[in-house]
Amino acid sequence: MSKEDVGITVSKNADFSEWYTQVVLKAKLADYAPVKGLIVLRPDGYSIWESLRSTFDKKFAKNGIRNGFLPILIPESLLGKEQKHFAGFNPEVFWVTHSGTNEIGDRLALRPTSETLAYTMYAKWIQSWRDLPLKINFWNTALRAEIKATKPFLRTSEFLWQEGHTVHTTQEEAEKEVMKILEIYKNTVEEELAIPVTTGKKSEKEKFVGAVYTTTMESIMPDGKALQMGTSHFLGQNFSKPFEVKFADKDNVEHFAWQTSWGVSWRLIGAMIMAHGDDKGLVLPPNVAPTQVVIVPIYKNEEGKEKVLSKVDEIKKQLETKEIRVHVDDRSGLSPGYKFNDWELKGVPLRIEIGPKDIEKQSIVIAKRHNREKSTLSFNEIEKIFTILQEIQKEMLEKAKEQAKENTIEISNYDEFKSKIERGGFFNAPWCGKLECEEKIKEETGADIRVIPFGSENEDLKCMYCKEQSLSKPVFARGY
Amino acid sequence: MSKEDVGITVSKNADFSEWYTQVVLKAKLADYAPVKGLIVLRPDGYSIWESLRSTFDKKFAKNGIRNGFLPILIPESLLGKEQKHFAGFNPEVFWVTHSGTNEIGDRLALRPTSETLAYTMYAKWIQSWRDLPLKINFWNTALRAEIKATKPFLRTSEFLWQEGHTVHTTQEEAEKEVMKILEIYKNTVEEELAIPVTTGKKSEKEKFVGAVYTTTMESIMPDGKALQMGTSHFLGQNFSKPFEVKFADKDNVEHFAWQTSWGVSWRLIGAMIMAHGDDKGLVLPPNVAPTQVVIVPIYKNEEGKEKVLSKVDEIKKQLETKEIRVHVDDRSGLSPGYKFNDWELKGVPLRIEIGPKDIEKQSIVIAKRHNREKSTLSFNEIEKIFTILQEIQKEMLEKAKEQAKENTIEISNYDEFKSKIERGGFFNAPWCGKLECEEKIKEETGADIRVIPFGSENEDLKCMYCKEQSLSKPVFARGY
Repeated sequence: MSKEDVGITVSKNADFSEWYTQVVLKAKLADYAPVKGLIVLRPDGYSIWESLRSTFDKKFAKNGIRNGFLPILIPESLLGKEQKHFAGFNPEVFWVTHSGTNEIGDRLALRPTSETLAYTMYAKWIQSWRDLPLKINFWNTALRAEIKATKPFLRTSEFLWQEGHTVHTTQEEAEKEVMKILEIYKNTVEEELAIPVTTGKKSEKEKFVGAVYTTTMESIMPDGKALQMGTSHFLGQNFSKPFEVKFADKDNVEHFAWQTSWGVSWRLIGAMIMAHGDDKGLVLPPNVAPTQVVIVPIYKNEEGKEKVLSKVDEIKKQLETKEIRVHVDDRSGLSPGYKFNDWELKGVPLRIEIGPKDIEKQSIVIAKRHNREKSTLSFNEIEKIFTILQEIQKEMLEKAKEQAKENTIEISNYDEFKSKIERGGFFNAPWCGKLECEEKIKEETGADIRVIPFGSENEDLKCMYCKEQSLSKPVFARGY
Repeated sequence: MSKEDVGITVSKNADFSEWYTQVVLKAKLADYAPVKGLIVLRPDGYSIWESLRSTFDKKFAKNGIRNGFLPILIPESLLGKEQKHFAGFNPEVFWVTHSGTNEIGDRLALRPTSETLAYTMYAKWIQSWRDLPLKINFWNTALRAEIKATKPFLRTSEFLWQEGHTVHTTQEEAEKEVMKILEIYKNTVEEELAIPVTTGKKSEKEKFVGAVYTTTMESIMPDGKALQMGTSHFLGQNFSKPFEVKFADKDNVEHFAWQTSWGVSWRLIGAMIMAHGDDKGLVLPPNVAPTQVVIVPIYKNEEGKEKVLSKVDEIKKQLETKEIRVHVDDRSGLSPGYKFNDWELKGVPLRIEIGPKDIEKQSIVIAKRHNREKSTLSFNEIEKIFTILQEIQKEMLEKAKEQAKENTIEISNYDEFKSKIERGGFFNAPWCGKLECEEKIKEETGADIRVIPFGSENEDLKCMYCKEQSLSKPVFARGY
């Protein structure tokens, strides 16, 4: 096999979209399933999801949230119970009409999201204030038919996600929960995936159908497009009323409950690939890398092999006591150069090279994936690798922050906006708050309001479109 | 709320089926979803599944198996590629015919099992012997339409399970994998769920549609019915041929690969409920109990409360350093008696009671759920609770083994079999190996061959039905 067959054949700058697809497929994260719009996750791809799930689970648990399971089938009549919600999802729903040869009366939707089903159950489970807060999270998939071309992790008809659904006695407590979750989302994405996010609210136009308001975290990708990274919704009593999620308070009076829902999906993996990858392939943040360190033993004859492999084994064990995920690439018949390329393509954060000469010098060569720097480390410094991995994680976040900063542009007038929108980026621009302006801007430039950052309220400026008094300075951008 | 409202109102012996349903619902493990055949898992139910998943994941990983993700939709044309397999599942398949208002040409099946999809992908991923063995496991749900009445964990149209799919270069390696998995299944069920199993092969009639042979583990439930606890299939080349799962060997000659598939589902939770529960409700083995120890503080006035709660907090922390899952029931306005019943219903393995008098005596009262024994433990013996939980786990398995032994009956002639089948149990009886006898026995008694235990080959006896020479002594039983 030549290098061309396995490596990435386009530059990230030259053709971002093709580059992305090649990285996903050639790093063996995912592959296309036989049905358009669907993908399969290979172990290296799924492992990243498992790592995120484990981090979220720990943080959810600390916040009193437990996991549950909901079935995938929701009757059409139930899905239609909250009208706006139904109208929003209806065009994308997959419908089950038969089981075996039997026709099903009330068609069954494959869950596009589970509010309607969860709250039907919650209404049965909640009687009194003692049953609240009720905070359950569900790790499952949602299905929304995609018409546009499939893009692994970013545009698929079925996607892995978590959806959390909480119920509270007061509006205040529910709104605090919305913010708490957004905070968990933000620090997990920044700490684990090394991607900075901007948090704030969605506009009325862009909020979740059925929510009172939607908070969101958004990131700017290297190609200048914005990506929604996760949302946390305050549902108010919009669902508790039609679904009769009620509780008797301490005074024995019945009230409708206050609710939240929130979710992140595997598009976080897509964001990670885009944010950090380079022309050699994937670049994985150490925290989520299935393999954190790969050791490539180098030898020319049997005698050398034995010496090298025995040292390799020693180093592997040393690293494993520090709970570092290590892999030894002892495949025969493949050159070290081939192996280096292979592991760079797969994004392993740190490579160790060790041959007979290194053993003479009592040292190893280490190569960092994220900046492709090589250096040596003496045998008695092996434990430093733990710290080096932490440093790589930090450096990747710092670099991503710088990139995001470069891609964030302050805008005061619409002409400037129009002249710059083509190059992409996050555009902070004053807005009057009116739907009309938002729609005109979208129509004329393709840019949405991605997020109205917390603290961006501003009444001293003029809306970039209508020039009336501004309300805030949202982030405008073209998005995924 | 009176005790009648929350407690189990029927005896396990008097009405096993109603008892089971009450335990599932009242212990808040699961609930019925709005669609017939579907259930929802509440946190205490899902937590048991998470515990099993985590144990299996560790064992799978040690055996070189990693997790992946497959989408839920399989085109009808693909599902039909292996004919016997398709014929077996076709009557139970849910069909998706529309997305939004668009009709779908090649109807999409909700996965009844993923062989056809997995092997389509595997055929793309495997080129050479270097790519093998390929061992991937998938944690997902499968959907098979149930016509009979819903029975949580035992008879549902969607169920949580894992399905593993491995590919090997040789028949020998694949067959070893089949047995390795069965061994993992067996020791996990015995060690974690405290349920003994009998392992062996399924008859030709009962094997997985598409397999060369199926190995299985079966358990006898307290009502005398058999439950299939998990299966591990040797697929031979039955799928690799139609799906073209081929590899170039070291000599560069192309061969069809050898395959296995295997799965356990949430019916393991159903088995656990049936095996250990009693008239007071659920009885959880400590290893999988979401809460292993519940502490009920007892006090009459504010002064007592403060003293008791401060000691409770100390004990809680002590137990948590041993990684014991502890909950303190400090709900106000509920009597200790009410709380005791509540936690017994929920099956928490160990209850600690502590009041002002106990503090004076420098001791606590502990109550074991599985045998309802009460004793005292002095404050300086708190650490013993770790060992006590391990003992409970062992005692539960021992008791279940005794029960299974009592329910296992040696049979030599058919009249005896017919006279005893009504009382239920595992019947070890000689069989000639012919389908005809197997079918007649099923027809006349409702009993299947559940498993042909390893080592039960026996040619010295006469088939209990046709009286010809026996081949083996299978376990006959009526099943779930």
